[in-house]
Amino acid sequence: MTNESSAQPNSDNNLRKSFRAVGHLVDSGIMKEILDTIIREDGKFSIDRFDIGKTNDDQSVLEATYTAENATTRDAIARHLIDLGVEIDVEHSVKVEISPADGVAPKDFYTTTNHKTTITYNGHTIQVDNVRMDGAIVVYGKDTATKAKCVKQRDLKSGDKIVVGVEGIRVEAEFVERDRSEFGFMTGDVSSERVVRIVVDSVAEVMSDRTKKIVVVAGPVLIHTGGSGSFGRLVEQGYVHGLLSGNALAVHDIENQLFGTSLGIDTKTGEAIDGGNSHHLRAINEVRRAGSIKNMVEAGLLNRGVMSSIVKANVPYALAGSIRDDGPLPETITDMNEAQTAYGKILEGADVCLMLASMLHSIAVGNMIPARVLTVCVDINPPVVTKLKDRGSHQAIGVVTDVGLFLHLLANRLCT
Amino acid sequence: MTNESSAQPNSDNNLRKSFRAVGHLVDSGIMKEILDTIIREDGKFSIDRFDIGKTNDDQSVLEATYTAENATTRDAIARHLIDLGVEIDVEHSVKVEISPADGVAPKDFYTTTNHKTTITYNGHTIQVDNVRMDGAIVVYGKDTATKAKCVKQRDLKSGDKIVVGVEGIRVEAEFVERDRSEFGFMTGDVSSERVVRIVVDSVAEVMSDRTKKIVVVAGPVLIHTGGSGSFGRLVEQGYVHGLLSGNALAVHDIENQLFGTSLGIDTKTGEAIDGGNSHHLRAINEVRRAGSIKNMVEAGLLNRGVMSSIVKANVPYALAGSIRDDGPLPETITDMNEAQTAYGKILEGADVCLMLASMLHSIAVGNMIPARVLTVCVDINPPVVTKLKDRGSHQAIGVVTDVGLFLHLLANRLCT
Amino acid sequence: MTNESSAQPNSDNNLRKSFRAVGHLVDSGIMKEILDTIIREDGKFSIDRFDIGKTNDDQSVLEATYTAENATTRDAIARHLIDLGVEIDVEHSVKVEISPADGVAPKDFYTTTNHKTTITYNGHTIQVDNVRMDGAIVVYGKDTATKAKCVKQRDLKSGDKIVVGVEGIRVEAEFVERDRSEFGFMTGDVSSERVVRIVVDSVAEVMSDRTKKIVVVAGPVLIHTGGSGSFGRLVEQGYVHGLLSGNALAVHDIENQLFGTSLGIDTKTGEAIDGGNSHHLRAINEVRRAGSIKNMVEAGLLNRGVMSSIVKANVPYALAGSIRDDGPLPETITDMNEAQTAYGKILEGADVCLMLASMLHSIAVGNMIPARVLTVCVDINPPVVTKLKDRGSHQAIGVVTDVGLFLHLLANRLCT
Amino acid sequence: MTNESSAQPNSDNNLRKSFRAVGHLVDSGIMKEILDTIIREDGKFSIDRFDIGKTNDDQSVLEATYTAENATTRDAIARHLIDLGVEIDVEHSVKVEISPADGVAPKDFYTTTNHKTTITYNGHTIQVDNVRMDGAIVVYGKDTATKAKCVKQRDLKSGDKIVVGVEGIRVEAEFVERDRSEFGFMTGDVSSERVVRIVVDSVAEVMSDRTKKIVVVAGPVLIHTGGSGSFGRLVEQGYVHGLLSGNALAVHDIENQLFGTSLGIDTKTGEAIDGGNSHHLRAINEVRRAGSIKNMVEAGLLNRGVMSSIVKANVPYALAGSIRDDGPLPETITDMNEAQTAYGKILEGADVCLMLASMLHSIAVGNMIPARVLTVCVDINPPVVTKLKDRGSHQAIGVVTDVGLFLHLLANRLCT
Repeated sequence: MTNESSAQPNSDNNLRKSFRAVGHLVDSGIMKEILDTIIREDGKFSIDRFDIGKTNDDQSVLEATYTAENATTRDAIARHLIDLGVEIDVEHSVKVEISPADGVAPKDFYTTTNHKTTITYNGHTIQVDNVRMDGAIVVYGKDTATKAKCVKQRDLKSGDKIVVGVEGIRVEAEFVERDRSEFGFMTGDVSSERVVRIVVDSVAEVMSDRTKKIVVVAGPVLIHTGGSGSFGRLVEQGYVHGLLSGNALAVHDIENQLFGTSLGIDTKTGEAIDGGNSHHLRAINEVRRAGSIKNMVEAGLLNRGVMSSIVKANVPYALAGSIRDDGPLPETITDMNEAQTAYGKILEGADVCLMLASMLHSIAVGNMIPARVLTVCVDINPPVVTKLKDRGSHQAIGVVTDVGLFLHLLANRLCT
Repeated sequence: MTNESSAQPNSDNNLRKSFRAVGHLVDSGIMKEILDTIIREDGKFSIDRFDIGKTNDDQSVLEATYTAENATTRDAIARHLIDLGVEIDVEHSVKVEISPADGVAPKDFYTTTNHKTTITYNGHTIQVDNVRMDGAIVVYGKDTATKAKCVKQRDLKSGDKIVVGVEGIRVEAEFVERDRSEFGFMTGDVSSERVVRIVVDSVAEVMSDRTKKIVVVAGPVLIHTGGSGSFGRLVEQGYVHGLLSGNALAVHDIENQLFGTSLGIDTKTGEAIDGGNSHHLRAINEVRRAGSIKNMVEAGLLNRGVMSSIVKANVPYALAGSIRDDGPLPETITDMNEAQTAYGKILEGADVCLMLASMLHSIAVGNMIPARVLTVCVDINPPVVTKLKDRGSHQAIGVVTDVGLFLHLLANRLCT
Repeated sequence: MTNESSAQPNSDNNLRKSFRAVGHLVDSGIMKEILDTIIREDGKFSIDRFDIGKTNDDQSVLEATYTAENATTRDAIARHLIDLGVEIDVEHSVKVEISPADGVAPKDFYTTTNHKTTITYNGHTIQVDNVRMDGAIVVYGKDTATKAKCVKQRDLKSGDKIVVGVEGIRVEAEFVERDRSEFGFMTGDVSSERVVRIVVDSVAEVMSDRTKKIVVVAGPVLIHTGGSGSFGRLVEQGYVHGLLSGNALAVHDIENQLFGTSLGIDTKTGEAIDGGNSHHLRAINEVRRAGSIKNMVEAGLLNRGVMSSIVKANVPYALAGSIRDDGPLPETITDMNEAQTAYGKILEGADVCLMLASMLHSIAVGNMIPARVLTVCVDINPPVVTKLKDRGSHQAIGVVTDVGLFLHLLANRLCT
Repeated sequence: MTNESSAQPNSDNNLRKSFRAVGHLVDSGIMKEILDTIIREDGKFSIDRFDIGKTNDDQSVLEATYTAENATTRDAIARHLIDLGVEIDVEHSVKVEISPADGVAPKDFYTTTNHKTTITYNGHTIQVDNVRMDGAIVVYGKDTATKAKCVKQRDLKSGDKIVVGVEGIRVEAEFVERDRSEFGFMTGDVSSERVVRIVVDSVAEVMSDRTKKIVVVAGPVLIHTGGSGSFGRLVEQGYVHGLLSGNALAVHDIENQLFGTSLGIDTKTGEAIDGGNSHHLRAINEVRRAGSIKNMVEAGLLNRGVMSSIVKANVPYALAGSIRDDGPLPETITDMNEAQTAYGKILEGADVCLMLASMLHSIAVGNMIPARVLTVCVDINPPVVTKLKDRGSHQAIGVVTDVGLFLHLLANRLCT
């Protein structure tokens, strides 16, 4: 195919960019997304070469050019295309600018995705460390020892060398691809009309791989729906390697163990107890008196339930505070920057992330993890996984069902 | 306590009504409802006597008077109070008027509730037969052989003697009462944060009473969520005595048995199959070819699933058509008046009604059954039971969970 | 590119099919869907030629081959691909078989989509008339006068010549395409976080084209949310050319006009009136007494509201019955086959379909209309448009908002 | 009526309590709640006197006794009854115990409600200051200068004198009562089938009282749904006296003003822009560069939108951080204890609280405000107000609708 000069409305070469993409472009939807992006920004494209993978195993190769109406949209298109894994000017060196103040990036800084990223810098190709969504790339070190790392905006230091613009950046987008998922049911659908037991089997299969690091994100609904015992079994038998939650999960778990209720629901009879007993406040008071959950467990004051099993099994955990908390518990991290740091530490090296009925903490974790982490989101409300995906955690799989029953079936499948 | 004359703004005795109520007026909420009704219609009340039940077993007695602003609101209040079980002028004979034409009631006809109802007529007290919501009361027969029955508006005949106005009618409202339910969990709440297994135990307990007639209302979600096998076990072991549904349940059940899919979901792998196979149309075609579901079962063409187990166990069923049906199947009743009649016949004498994920059919059945029928509504969508209650089926209990899992747990509890 | 023989696991030529597709294959998502279908059915594909549209206006051309594992999956793939607009053996003549009985199709009958369809028959290319979802194609007439029409399964006659298999059929799929929609906001998204006023502007723009036939499908929520007056204005000023609904809409509209309530909600104060007044039953009784809604309007007994404005403006309407109906009204069509026919007649030639808060009737209408009808579905519940799309009405656009407010804004934009 | 000795199963006088309640016990539902509480805890009651209010304006008087099975349930019942406004041993002096450590209450501490509370202490009746939900009562000062205040658990100091047990406490529960609401539509219902315009009129009426302090709690949906302009008008014309929100509202507002998008939705066209532009990160960066939102406004860099209008009108605001925040903005309070304090300060003296589409912040505020604050919760999701009520904010009224449209209608009603 020849280049079609008639497709370029603008002779200004500055508004024109050549680009290249390799991969399963059609079945991942990237091909469509590339072209849609250009059109949405009122650009035009001209395809020079598109060698489609002839069979399902072959990759496709795209070579094309787009023309934008002005420099702003030219760069907006480039930024979006790069994040899709498209190569634009990758052989150029990245431009860097100096951070003007602590916690402030240069105006045109490149914001990272949750995909593997490399940059070209002074002729070297450097992989960016600690990649996560919505960070900046800081270049440091000298000559052949030059390195690059992804840094959260607020952790930038005055004088940091920060990647700006769109040149010299290559992203390897790991999109959900047909027939390549570790989850058998991985259709990306969010449906309440799904055969939950099939999903449980598939998740159990993945979790039974003892080399995988599994982190659970959970809300207090885990306790309300009676999932506490099943979760405890999974912890005891080594299927949970980190727990991320908020103040409420621990409070209602301990309330449940001390008083048999969980925010006013009798977890034995299911009967609603409307207010009046303040059990959750008394539970908080007992932990404050003991000094910590760990102290309570060691003193024999707390013997069962989620937190007890987590403490006994030495599973690391982080409880993030929130504006609506009662108490909070002594171990709840009230500063959100510190809480994000604590979450990040437990998430290091995670392979699987099980998100159980907590939109707030699930979105927080979605922001922090690379897209390669297998992510399953269980909630009786359909919108949770949709929100996760809208915010860039495209890898998340949604299961619409009761969390207590899900854990019951999962523990029965995995535990002896 | 003395009557307070100062409370009557209007000396017109015609706008004043004495009334009396006996029962668990406080814990059923009836007392509050009575007073709220009067105030909402801009009436005034004066309480002459209120003997509250001194202990939980004692009934309360209320004797009072209300005054309305005009005859219209006087009667509106009376109608509402009577439906709550309040006695107003019960010793008077009911007034009757003659139906002016087939299917037409006199203007002021009394519309029935789903509670036990008696009328006073020529000095006799007569119990109304076939009571159901939203009917008219027809009086027939002579002297001591005079009888009364509840008749749907469209079944009235020209010349029928129909009860009008508000006098001489007594309703025995069976409202949900504290501590008197056969369901242990009967709080009337609708919550997704509930311990589903407790509910299953409670429903299983009720169903295990072999003297009870149990009718199931179900939508196609039963099939999509993999509940078919568990439901079949319940049928085989005699826990289902009637099935009310629509065209879709049978179509998707048969599609599932013949092709392994249910409206485009592979019920073995849970994978979505988007269109293209038209299995549900082919399933319909096969039933049309055989002439009926029964023929298919007898010819050995359909051996498993919901409809097969129902046919083999000789459980009566009715499939009502709807405007969105494909096909329909030969046995689907396309005329809605006939379908209502068929439903009504199967519901005769029912003690328990299990409503599984079908808002349309559940509301239809709610309209037909007396309030004394134990009614459990299982749906992953919270609004279904709310709609049922809004339409007068106050006895319905809601369980928000996955229908497939619910049946799985229920069958495991009940079946050998 | 050369054909890759190594990709064919099976030398049996019977399991191999060549196919061809032309159109905006990438941006419509069809290209991805074609390849996904083959892989899902465990087939293999080999692409011989893929000329991608070099600019946004150019069409793409695909020529390829797939190989299936057996004849069943070969045909399943073909069926799905054809429905996507792919050409497979289109130059062959269609095979026809004789209908074995009234209402029964041959086993392997082709089930139609809602897209424009043509067949090759004895060397002629014939366009199929009356195309709609889920029908069969009947061939009739002789030689050059041979015609083809889409017929619902139940309307087939014994002896009809019916298209079977997959050869000789061409479908022109009108998928949602980037930048080609008449609706400015047409992203296909379903979002509650959308700027409703933008959507209203866009719908108003389409409706202001006086050459378009606009049919409204509506549920009783139109009345409950106070949309009655705005809807009346749209009718009076000629923006509504057909109304499809059920018994309830008319009942609650007339109840609202006669008594100021709509199923127990005072539509002036918004106050809930719980049962007790039976206004909807009295409204039904008044219509039954008058004989019809039309009679009531002509007798001056009904002067305002949805049904009055519809009758006065001579807008055709059809009210379909349902199993949960009270009454029903004399004009409600109780037989579902007849109701579908009545709906179909009003939908003939429709260009725009506005679906207002009625899942049941919206899905019914979605089954009946060609995909080219602009379809907007307004509902406060997000799942309605999802269900529509799941059932094949891919053209439907969802707006999640209050129907009363939507109509208020729409009437203000359109009406003088 | 005489005391019925037969109702007491236990002769132990310690398990028996006399109690008294005065008020609109029936129409507020308190009477039912009192009796339900006793029965749920397996207690028995005996009513000695119940003088029901003879007319709607009269209060009722209840004098009764309950007997519990053991001391634990005796006190549990007492605690619940006291919170309903029942008087039990109010003439006794409260018991106080000394706080064992900072932030720790004695085991049996009394946990406060959001209702007006008084205690009896050494023969004096003392009103508790700063009453809020879930606090402890600290008694301080000497003799006639003795005072009592409500203190959050974590703010207790070692050595504080804290009220324990159930004696000497009187709560004046301000429950929603029939016909006494300032909101005309105040049915307590949560319905999507409601006439929103009626609600708007009612809220506007309340807000037009210029003596009222009105605090708005809002989530970023306010921006996404296009409510920014209407909200700005309300601020400018003096209808907003405090704004409580999180990081996201301010980020998306500023993103919207700087870039015309709000988390990837073009707020002019409603078109979704999926990722790739990172506008929200650039917006955060600009505020960090300026140092604060105030600096941006003063420097003329931010001229319109929610935050600009708030800053210009000198309306106090607090942005609470959360674990899922990007950034955060310099003014976002990252420590949750500090954020609660900042919220509390702005809420001091509030009369009306308008909660707009933010479950997290609405529940937080619900915990902090007395029940006398008129509270309206607008959200397109029905569960939000239910959650608020479940957590004790019984006074909250729910409106299920689009926030952008709600503000549009409200500003049109209120603003010139």
